[in-house]
Amino acid sequence: MTPTLPAVPLTLEGSAVLHQMARVNWKAWRALPESERQEIVAEAAAVLGDGKYTAPFAMLGHKADLMLIHFRANFEELAAAQMAVNRLRLSEFLEQTSSYVSVVELGLYESTSKVYNQLVDSGVEVHSEAWDKGIADVMERQRAAMAPRLYPEVPNARYVCFYPMDRKRGEQKNWYSEPMSARGRMMHEHGMVGRRYAGTVRQIISGSIGFDDWEWGVDLFADDPVVFKKLIYEMRFDEVSAVYALFGSFYVGLRFSAAELGAFLNGTMPKWPVAG
Amino acid sequence: MTPTLPAVPLTLEGSAVLHQMARVNWKAWRALPESERQEIVAEAAAVLGDGKYTAPFAMLGHKADLMLIHFRANFEELAAAQMAVNRLRLSEFLEQTSSYVSVVELGLYESTSKVYNQLVDSGVEVHSEAWDKGIADVMERQRAAMAPRLYPEVPNARYVCFYPMDRKRGEQKNWYSEPMSARGRMMHEHGMVGRRYAGTVRQIISGSIGFDDWEWGVDLFADDPVVFKKLIYEMRFDEVSAVYALFGSFYVGLRFSAAELGAFLNGTMPKWPVAG
Amino acid sequence: MTPTLPAVPLTLEGSAVLHQMARVNWKAWRALPESERQEIVAEAAAVLGDGKYTAPFAMLGHKADLMLIHFRANFEELAAAQMAVNRLRLSEFLEQTSSYVSVVELGLYESTSKVYNQLVDSGVEVHSEAWDKGIADVMERQRAAMAPRLYPEVPNARYVCFYPMDRKRGEQKNWYSEPMSARGRMMHEHGMVGRRYAGTVRQIISGSIGFDDWEWGVDLFADDPVVFKKLIYEMRFDEVSAVYALFGSFYVGLRFSAAELGAFLNGTMPKWPVAG
Amino acid sequence: MTPTLPAVPLTLEGSAVLHQMARVNWKAWRALPESERQEIVAEAAAVLGDGKYTAPFAMLGHKADLMLIHFRANFEELAAAQMAVNRLRLSEFLEQTSSYVSVVELGLYESTSKVYNQLVDSGVEVHSEAWDKGIADVMERQRAAMAPRLYPEVPNARYVCFYPMDRKRGEQKNWYSEPMSARGRMMHEHGMVGRRYAGTVRQIISGSIGFDDWEWGVDLFADDPVVFKKLIYEMRFDEVSAVYALFGSFYVGLRFSAAELGAFLNGTMPKWPVAG
Amino acid sequence: MTPTLPAVPLTLEGSAVLHQMARVNWKAWRALPESERQEIVAEAAAVLGDGKYTAPFAMLGHKADLMLIHFRANFEELAAAQMAVNRLRLSEFLEQTSSYVSVVELGLYESTSKVYNQLVDSGVEVHSEAWDKGIADVMERQRAAMAPRLYPEVPNARYVCFYPMDRKRGEQKNWYSEPMSARGRMMHEHGMVGRRYAGTVRQIISGSIGFDDWEWGVDLFADDPVVFKKLIYEMRFDEVSAVYALFGSFYVGLRFSAAELGAFLNGTMPKWPVAG
Repeated sequence: MTPTLPAVPLTLEGSAVLHQMARVNWKAWRALPESERQEIVAEAAAVLGDGKYTAPFAMLGHKADLMLIHFRANFEELAAAQMAVNRLRLSEFLEQTSSYVSVVELGLYESTSKVYNQLVDSGVEVHSEAWDKGIADVMERQRAAMAPRLYPEVPNARYVCFYPMDRKRGEQKNWYSEPMSARGRMMHEHGMVGRRYAGTVRQIISGSIGFDDWEWGVDLFADDPVVFKKLIYEMRFDEVSAVYALFGSFYVGLRFSAAELGAFLNGTMPKWPVAG
Repeated sequence: MTPTLPAVPLTLEGSAVLHQMARVNWKAWRALPESERQEIVAEAAAVLGDGKYTAPFAMLGHKADLMLIHFRANFEELAAAQMAVNRLRLSEFLEQTSSYVSVVELGLYESTSKVYNQLVDSGVEVHSEAWDKGIADVMERQRAAMAPRLYPEVPNARYVCFYPMDRKRGEQKNWYSEPMSARGRMMHEHGMVGRRYAGTVRQIISGSIGFDDWEWGVDLFADDPVVFKKLIYEMRFDEVSAVYALFGSFYVGLRFSAAELGAFLNGTMPKWPVAG
Repeated sequence: MTPTLPAVPLTLEGSAVLHQMARVNWKAWRALPESERQEIVAEAAAVLGDGKYTAPFAMLGHKADLMLIHFRANFEELAAAQMAVNRLRLSEFLEQTSSYVSVVELGLYESTSKVYNQLVDSGVEVHSEAWDKGIADVMERQRAAMAPRLYPEVPNARYVCFYPMDRKRGEQKNWYSEPMSARGRMMHEHGMVGRRYAGTVRQIISGSIGFDDWEWGVDLFADDPVVFKKLIYEMRFDEVSAVYALFGSFYVGLRFSAAELGAFLNGTMPKWPVAG
Repeated sequence: MTPTLPAVPLTLEGSAVLHQMARVNWKAWRALPESERQEIVAEAAAVLGDGKYTAPFAMLGHKADLMLIHFRANFEELAAAQMAVNRLRLSEFLEQTSSYVSVVELGLYESTSKVYNQLVDSGVEVHSEAWDKGIADVMERQRAAMAPRLYPEVPNARYVCFYPMDRKRGEQKNWYSEPMSARGRMMHEHGMVGRRYAGTVRQIISGSIGFDDWEWGVDLFADDPVVFKKLIYEMRFDEVSAVYALFGSFYVGLRFSAAELGAFLNGTMPKWPVAG
Repeated sequence: MTPTLPAVPLTLEGSAVLHQMARVNWKAWRALPESERQEIVAEAAAVLGDGKYTAPFAMLGHKADLMLIHFRANFEELAAAQMAVNRLRLSEFLEQTSSYVSVVELGLYESTSKVYNQLVDSGVEVHSEAWDKGIADVMERQRAAMAPRLYPEVPNARYVCFYPMDRKRGEQKNWYSEPMSARGRMMHEHGMVGRRYAGTVRQIISGSIGFDDWEWGVDLFADDPVVFKKLIYEMRFDEVSAVYALFGSFYVGLRFSAAELGAFLNGTMPKWPVAG
């Protein structure tokens, strides 16, 4: 008798991620004396740092004026990053309108099927100690190989697009009831579309089951924002998106350097890339 | 064997678009001395300009008192336009209640089918270099031909109707799972209805996948607002709307000239068209 | 071959309609000196007028304390009415919580079938000039005959019930995909129920496609509010409501005369009908 | 030919009902001098009265600190009760977060079937004058017999549970499309469960079609709050709830006497029952 | 004839539970003199106590800065705990953004089937006195055996994950219409997944039917937050979750000791475990 394989695909987790969306209280900000604004900007710019692991974005639309993306080694450091923003005097001029808590995730649909089948073919019982060890070995190797993608810097591009998403669990169309093979095939096709945009869009997927109100967060980075629309529109015709994707709010913004936070708060859009 | 054609229709993108909806804090506004109000109005009117690419509307209902529509060459300029509004002293008397970020879009269902089939008939492989070049050539020609529609001025009419919309991805009725031919046919029928209103309503479609919470924004401009209802009601019986359209909030407003911003803020409805 | 008849029923449009729902800032109001309150009440009562085309209602529940219903000849006048309320000093003590923008609508399901069939039987081509003229003639006659119902005064009753509604466009049950004959039959049955309440409830339907977030607004007026429940409950079993109706928020309130606005703002419920 | 019987069940209506949910502005309250608080409490306690027809509850959770339930003879008196609360100085320290407007309702599924069939068997035509009179006679007798249940006092128990509900009108499961006999049978089974809790839970159903955003409001009163969970959980497996019930927000609170309003506002939970 | 067994599974109820989520008004807090902050912290820390039955958590994201979980013997004590927080001067610096009211629940699917069948096999009539007594005996024994799980302390771990959930009552997939045997089987499989995480995650289920807007609340406690994601993701493929689970908002936070409330309010993340 063929044993029932686990339905859950293996995933690797990396950096803890916090998106913070905020409106600026422009009126209160401008009411401050110039010298005080400079002090507040200096304090904030120092904490935001060089943009590798905390990056500020000027957002389009009323949902937020400012978005900060934080990548950290773990949730302890993520909590510390959040606290550090709270402590800024600048935070008194920010009204947080949204946020997203997640962890960088690499889904391993292909490796999963392979290792599950290898273990079963070797006669290893599902969820036995040998099984767990076999899985752990594969995960360890993958984790080492993929370390740079698990702990990325914020990609170096002018535009960001962020949105959260779920896989549908409808009464007839239910991603979580589909067999692993069908899910694997659909994810593979989906990945092929992404690959054609590899030169123009950098994508970071983070998982948020247990951490926030959707199952995944998606960050896209590009120098031409119209490419976001092209990519997502094309993907929407993939079976996995057409049938099984549910989307939350979309955020689009322009990256700037923390060194130009003062210019942003003065109501101008800092240039990019930063002159070096 | 017939190759699988891409499911995504070709689209052309033009101006970056921002809708800003705001309530006026009438109480705070009226509490200002007359002279200060005049200064603030003068500053704002100068920034809003001649109405070609930024136009103000007095809105009906509580969702907003004022709507600004901005058309810009690209997202950099759109961000600059948003920043310029933020910098206005007037913005201290506006509470933004909503917004919409999008890009003028022309969907090319008919050209798409034609070019996809031509390329395939010529033996070109899907997503090959030759394919991409063939597509790019068509797009380039269309872009040139349609430049005025891709980079429009705000149409010259008293009334605006704005709403965002999605195509349904239900469990049985799913636009994105329909074959290109069926989608093309439905879009064509839909367009025929619009054509009968061509003399009375000007329509601008903008795409917002990746930029905002719905897939498209629709702006209608007309001198008789009842025509909005007639047109949209008639279209709602089209298969593409009846079965596949999901609608967000509807906004209706009356255009006025930035030169009459002071009259609007004094609580009167400026006349239209502007005497010349 | 039988030509395809248009699916959209003919409608007549009359008065432009604005519902404004607001909470009273009772605390700020009571903090005013008596003399100032009297001035503000006098100014507002003069603008609200005799109640024929703008009527105030004291609302039950927390959604609003006050509702104003405005009927106007067209959207220009409706915008002016909104502006006039904005200009009132009273408006500084009102927080608008909701609103509804619509236009009085008479649906002509029976005439529509008749005229469509007559024209077709006379060999007139759908959407030809002769067709449009034939339709326009019927509309003109109906508009003249129904003028009092198209441009009504606010009915003279103690209680109002207002709610917005849509026709369902589900995956299996879709009003807009039903043939005209089925829709006509269902609307006719629905009308028969209404007719039995004709002596106790006055109903005004307004269309809001293109103007607000639902397709129609319904106003019921009666001297016994329990009749609202009886009527709507009975109608809910009609096929057209049971299967195809979606409802928004319900508002119920008590009418009073603008001459007694001061009593209302002093926190007492003015009597009705007004002694004459 | 068997005539089509009306699908709507007969209902009796009694007291008009208003639920008011509010948060207390604890900070502002405590900032008052003790003497002023005592005056405000005395004024409010006098208006709230002996608890028979207006009862205060201390609520659990952030949705409300205080809930008032008002039973009144009709909507005029209900409006007066609402106005009386508005006039209280205490109301300046309450932020209304929700409310519910309804009327005590007794559904007469069993009598309905009986009288409809009797009338038809006697050859009375549906909706004829004789029919209406026959119905009115039955209603009159029932109204007299059920007067105490139609105009109840607020039951004497420590805990309240309030929630609004609808009957589902889905695409396949639609309460309003079910035949009277099936609805009657399901309501009967549902009632049998309730009967087994008769000694521990007192239930008051009020109808809100036309008055508020759900079709019914349910109030349960008991001295052991865990019984609410037991009862509602058991009922949820009834066909009428499992398949056809949609629920709004749930509110749970502890009753206290208006005489102890001061203790409640000092931040302590008054005992119950009141020592007599 | 086989009698119809009740469809409701037996449940045991234990501690009354309140989750309180709040944002800190950092600006107002920091504006206080140091000495006043110390007094307020001391007062609050004393009331929060040793963390056994009231525990504070620093939350990630904008939904809340602080979450308090209260376990109490019954709803009277829970109301007293809520009141005690309200009385704190600290509460003036907290804005409650959410809450959850529930009662610790142990679902007894296996015992239920067993006892129902035993009683029926012994010829006991459903809902007879003998039936009720038989059930009560089983419940009494289970309650005694499970007392520690019914009245738990807040588990001793760095991270908490809280979310509310419902069982789906869709038109085709309806948990409450499934037979007891199918529900029992699915719950058993679900439990088997949980068992494999027993060493790393502690789970407390509380029931909220009749108390709050979802049917259950789930609290997970662990020292590694990534395990929350692993566990919930794996469970999502279980039939009971894949098909029948609906989830509300997810909250994730870091536990700290009330003794370090001052450090938290100064904007630093207190260490854990507390040095002893």
